[in-house]
Amino acid sequence: MGTLEAWRNMREVCVVGVGIHKFMRPGEGSVTAMGREAILAALEDAGAEFRDIQAGFCGRVNQITGTGISVFGEVGQTGILIDNVEKACASASTALRLATWVIGAGLYDVVLCAGVETMSRGLLGAPASEKTASYSQLMGMGIMPGEYALRARRHMSQYGSTPEQFAQVSVKAHKNSSMNPYARYQTPMTLEEVLNSRMIADPITLYQCSNNSDGATAAVVCAREVAHRFRGKPITIAGWASGTPEYSPTGVGGDVAEGFIARLAREAYERAGLGPEDIQVCQVHDAFTPGEVFAVEELGFCPPGEGARFIWEGKADIGGEKPVNTDGGLLGRGHPIGATGLAQVAEIVRQLRGEAGPRQVPGDPKVGLTHNVGVGGCNIFIFKR
Amino acid sequence: MGTLEAWRNMREVCVVGVGIHKFMRPGEGSVTAMGREAILAALEDAGAEFRDIQAGFCGRVNQITGTGISVFGEVGQTGILIDNVEKACASASTALRLATWVIGAGLYDVVLCAGVETMSRGLLGAPASEKTASYSQLMGMGIMPGEYALRARRHMSQYGSTPEQFAQVSVKAHKNSSMNPYARYQTPMTLEEVLNSRMIADPITLYQCSNNSDGATAAVVCAREVAHRFRGKPITIAGWASGTPEYSPTGVGGDVAEGFIARLAREAYERAGLGPEDIQVCQVHDAFTPGEVFAVEELGFCPPGEGARFIWEGKADIGGEKPVNTDGGLLGRGHPIGATGLAQVAEIVRQLRGEAGPRQVPGDPKVGLTHNVGVGGCNIFIFKR
Repeated sequence: MGTLEAWRNMREVCVVGVGIHKFMRPGEGSVTAMGREAILAALEDAGAEFRDIQAGFCGRVNQITGTGISVFGEVGQTGILIDNVEKACASASTALRLATWVIGAGLYDVVLCAGVETMSRGLLGAPASEKTASYSQLMGMGIMPGEYALRARRHMSQYGSTPEQFAQVSVKAHKNSSMNPYARYQTPMTLEEVLNSRMIADPITLYQCSNNSDGATAAVVCAREVAHRFRGKPITIAGWASGTPEYSPTGVGGDVAEGFIARLAREAYERAGLGPEDIQVCQVHDAFTPGEVFAVEELGFCPPGEGARFIWEGKADIGGEKPVNTDGGLLGRGHPIGATGLAQVAEIVRQLRGEAGPRQVPGDPKVGLTHNVGVGGCNIFIFKR
Repeated sequence: MGTLEAWRNMREVCVVGVGIHKFMRPGEGSVTAMGREAILAALEDAGAEFRDIQAGFCGRVNQITGTGISVFGEVGQTGILIDNVEKACASASTALRLATWVIGAGLYDVVLCAGVETMSRGLLGAPASEKTASYSQLMGMGIMPGEYALRARRHMSQYGSTPEQFAQVSVKAHKNSSMNPYARYQTPMTLEEVLNSRMIADPITLYQCSNNSDGATAAVVCAREVAHRFRGKPITIAGWASGTPEYSPTGVGGDVAEGFIARLAREAYERAGLGPEDIQVCQVHDAFTPGEVFAVEELGFCPPGEGARFIWEGKADIGGEKPVNTDGGLLGRGHPIGATGLAQVAEIVRQLRGEAGPRQVPGDPKVGLTHNVGVGGCNIFIFKR
């Protein structure tokens, strides 16, 4: 049996409720308190109670063992299976994928997913000092902004993209996050402010880096055939794909554009029976501004090399032809790494329900996509109403 | 669709290869080197190559993010999905459960599971000093041997079980591990040695505690319908169950015997269409000696309260009516927490294949069980040849 055939034989799976605890500065939140609020919000949004939940998956990175049972235990203790999954910045979307699998297979009807994170400040992956750094670290490898910067420089050299075009990603992000009450950053930024902030890894300035944050997210996921039990308007998971890069055991370094993300996008489109032209709203992994540029190319929204201009020309704006990161993305929302994936899902659910308020994409969008990347792989989901 | 009906509609899933890196003292191993060796051993046992593998699940607790892709990347980088799962001492069996689900559902045909762990020495969950301990910690709660000891004392008071009977669990464990080349402890112990070792939490002495260890384990899992591609003799996963305790958000404390493990055992037996009387060899979670006593009762091998005498009378010996922890269990094998679950599976596979050498259970066993408990829940599997 082929995987595509197996997917088409599975039950239809949908998200019926989403919840977010506002993203905050590191040190402001606790995993249990934030997780509880996000879960209660998702249950309320679905019109569900904890006793409806038959299994749980918890995405988290930095927490100690037992996170899922501690967080879910804040809301109810009903003996259900609860697993913890870790996939760096793609942890929460991994929780959603597990839910999709078990519901699709008929093992459970209603599953709760959560993503939680508390973080410390500072640069992830950075050596303590120049003295302790490896040669590859001194060249920028294994340090996130360095990796993205190297790839951005190559993009500039190969396609003529400009620092201004990359910086525009952050301007758009902060404009959108100023309309999102759950986002950490509530104030728009000008292009000059982004460009003139401290240089981190040329061409990436400080305001082009997503920030370590505390936060929590949750989603109630169920079989489409039982969604009528709940009040929340169901949004169907039409397709998904997940994989790892082929060129590096750590999953970072190399040129992602030529490799695995584009392959995964094709796989997700095939499962959904849809193409890039069908996507009406999209949340991508803009950990650093070049990330969004690469993503719009890899997802097939524009030809290779044209991503920076695509965004610069406003095509990824809320009123543009392919709105991207309408809630502010990682740059505007903040990036509590274990929680981010389900924040993307929450935004797509709200957009496809027409509930996104001042940041609602016009034209009654019916199809959306999320793209969540971490050390360890990438999860892509396609949603439809 | 009910969960039992869904399980019966799934494809038959089997283990075709198992591998272990010898368990060692903390500090002796590295996750990548041990993981590589366990994976290569499992592939060799199956007669499979890494390019046959379509997805991977990695159980681990203390490692940093990206463990799975780092460990699998030591063997091959083929772009497959790799997820990391964490469920404390039940992490590796959680990896097997995810593999069972996705293969059963038809999404993948061949999946690699691994469990890896490097640990530090010392008592898990213990406060730094009496001054920093909470009242509940001072009473033994939240500290593993304390939890088991409280429940053991209750068992002694309620059923008349004796310290000698608990200690016998460790005598049996070390006898069995002395016949297991992958076990950390290669020397038998007398009852006197066990009883006279330092008291940790009455009635649990030092030699009744499983030890933090370094180690790695792996299994190649596939759909029964493709098992003919491989040389390894397939052992079928007949049933499984997983859940959390109902009484505590941390999953520890309370009286486990009356609760969730017995319920899960019934669920696993129901999925398998088998009962406790069918189990011919069994690996249980003997993190501390009383754990094996509770398990043989919870799994239905003897009536409640009779577990200690059951073991004392030799009924759980390799030549007894219900052999338990034939490879030495956690006590004799060592307990690298993220790896333990698949060591149990490896032993059941070897026993059901008749490949367990000097510790082979007589009578050509065809049905076995594993029971792996962690903070965050329990996984039970039933295997048949």
